[in-house]
Amino acid sequence: MQLTILGCHSASPKSNAHPTAQVLEIKGHLFLIDCGEGTQVRLRQHKVKFSRIKHIFISHLHGDHVFGLLGLITTFGLLNRKESLTLHGPLGVKEFVETQLRLSGSYLSYQVYYNELSSSDSELIFEDEGVYVKTIPLKHRIYTNGFHFEEKLGERKLNYQKAVDLEINPVYFNKLKQSKNVVSERGEEINYKDVTEDPDPPKSYSFCSDTSYSPEIIPHIYKTNLLYHESTFLSSASHEDLAYKTGHSTALHAGLIARKAKAKKLLLGHFSARYKNLDAFVNEAQEVFEPVEHAHTGMQIDIN
Amino acid sequence: MQLTILGCHSASPKSNAHPTAQVLEIKGHLFLIDCGEGTQVRLRQHKVKFSRIKHIFISHLHGDHVFGLLGLITTFGLLNRKESLTLHGPLGVKEFVETQLRLSGSYLSYQVYYNELSSSDSELIFEDEGVYVKTIPLKHRIYTNGFHFEEKLGERKLNYQKAVDLEINPVYFNKLKQSKNVVSERGEEINYKDVTEDPDPPKSYSFCSDTSYSPEIIPHIYKTNLLYHESTFLSSASHEDLAYKTGHSTALHAGLIARKAKAKKLLLGHFSARYKNLDAFVNEAQEVFEPVEHAHTGMQIDIN
Repeated sequence: MQLTILGCHSASPKSNAHPTAQVLEIKGHLFLIDCGEGTQVRLRQHKVKFSRIKHIFISHLHGDHVFGLLGLITTFGLLNRKESLTLHGPLGVKEFVETQLRLSGSYLSYQVYYNELSSSDSELIFEDEGVYVKTIPLKHRIYTNGFHFEEKLGERKLNYQKAVDLEINPVYFNKLKQSKNVVSERGEEINYKDVTEDPDPPKSYSFCSDTSYSPEIIPHIYKTNLLYHESTFLSSASHEDLAYKTGHSTALHAGLIARKAKAKKLLLGHFSARYKNLDAFVNEAQEVFEPVEHAHTGMQIDIN
Repeated sequence: MQLTILGCHSASPKSNAHPTAQVLEIKGHLFLIDCGEGTQVRLRQHKVKFSRIKHIFISHLHGDHVFGLLGLITTFGLLNRKESLTLHGPLGVKEFVETQLRLSGSYLSYQVYYNELSSSDSELIFEDEGVYVKTIPLKHRIYTNGFHFEEKLGERKLNYQKAVDLEINPVYFNKLKQSKNVVSERGEEINYKDVTEDPDPPKSYSFCSDTSYSPEIIPHIYKTNLLYHESTFLSSASHEDLAYKTGHSTALHAGLIARKAKAKKLLLGHFSARYKNLDAFVNEAQEVFEPVEHAHTGMQIDIN
């Protein structure tokens, strides 16, 4: 499970401060999370294989999270993509995309499916045999969701050599991995625990941008392996009022959420352009939580 | 009169190939022409003062000419712009902009006026005491206009010393500049030609992107000082068919148009990503017209 940061700054893009976009590699999926202006250029720079992106998750329709979407979608078309694409985003994302496609006279070479969200409760929005994705209802100026990505508990890990030594027929190996006892060729009852180990604990990633300080999200991100939480402002710069008014958080807020949620690690992002030194964000959050890092464009984090 | 190229490549943006956007400085105006994805970043990089842009001219609604528009418009808002902005573009540009503003819950701090175009004839779309702008109807897959920017003929240039020597009362200086004879303090009739010189000849710039080979545009760009003409493809690479099918031109087409229009200079742009060597475009156009240059990001050209 690996996260790549393509952009982690708020508001207007600059040549050294790109708006929100991330790629999450999880159980064979390559999920794109938010799509600020210029995301397709960043995807190329970081050599992400475009065609592997089959799901895009859009937190909300503010420009710094979505103004790169149409460029990416039409580029997929220019590359003659055939595989369908699913867009998970707020109610309105379909109109946002289709109005622009219609007015530009564009026809895509592939199908776009829209999973338009409008619930104020957490919803399961994607699931397969290895992964599920749930929304995290956030508090922002417009309807906004974070996303919680979690692996499912895998099968138990079989000790093949031991199974062979015990003369277990290989047709029973899957049963053992699925916590079922079997009988060996010698007629012995074999407890699955004797030849298998516990599966790796499932890992999770929680993406929370943009939001006011909101302890209501804690049950949805509890004990997450990596929490990305926005910290547009600094409490230490006396900007809590500004955060409150604009529907954003400070680094201290992010640290408090990480602590209460017992997250394993906190990653800060969505920095206002008014601050030049990003270490100040880390220092502020560290007052209440560790470990903390600040995101930067091109950053890759292994989640485990 | 100075042109700055912010992007001159077709289709998808890459880190070294930006889509169409240009800034034209003319008689105190700063006109933005087309606005591909990432234009606001290029404007910052080339230190263009955002607030001076009061008119944006959009040739057509294909993404590589317009996907940077909403980012720029909302950034103007974040900068708390107060002065109005006029968007000249195809019918639909208002819906394009306002749908995205509405869905993103954005409110701008300034007024946007829309000059929506739908005529297939050339129209006068902007005029003041120093400049006029006319559309150049182009042939593309969707409704598209080029733009012809032309200075108005200025006043005659007064030789102040000579006027003083001839004892002409300064209250008559403006009359002389306006080609009117006056009477000096000595009672002599003074012919305006004796104390004034012809004004500088008005300069013009013609922007033609995207278009098939279209000699119909020649009357609208006749004797222009600088012709920017798209050359997406190369005839020498046997891509005339491709140009025809996609509503584009080759460098040879651009050269022929420049020759027939008796342009003073040709600037090529809107290159397909399939070609690595842009000199090939110049070489091809030079077979029929000189002087020719190919555009590149950051290029600045004085038009005179």
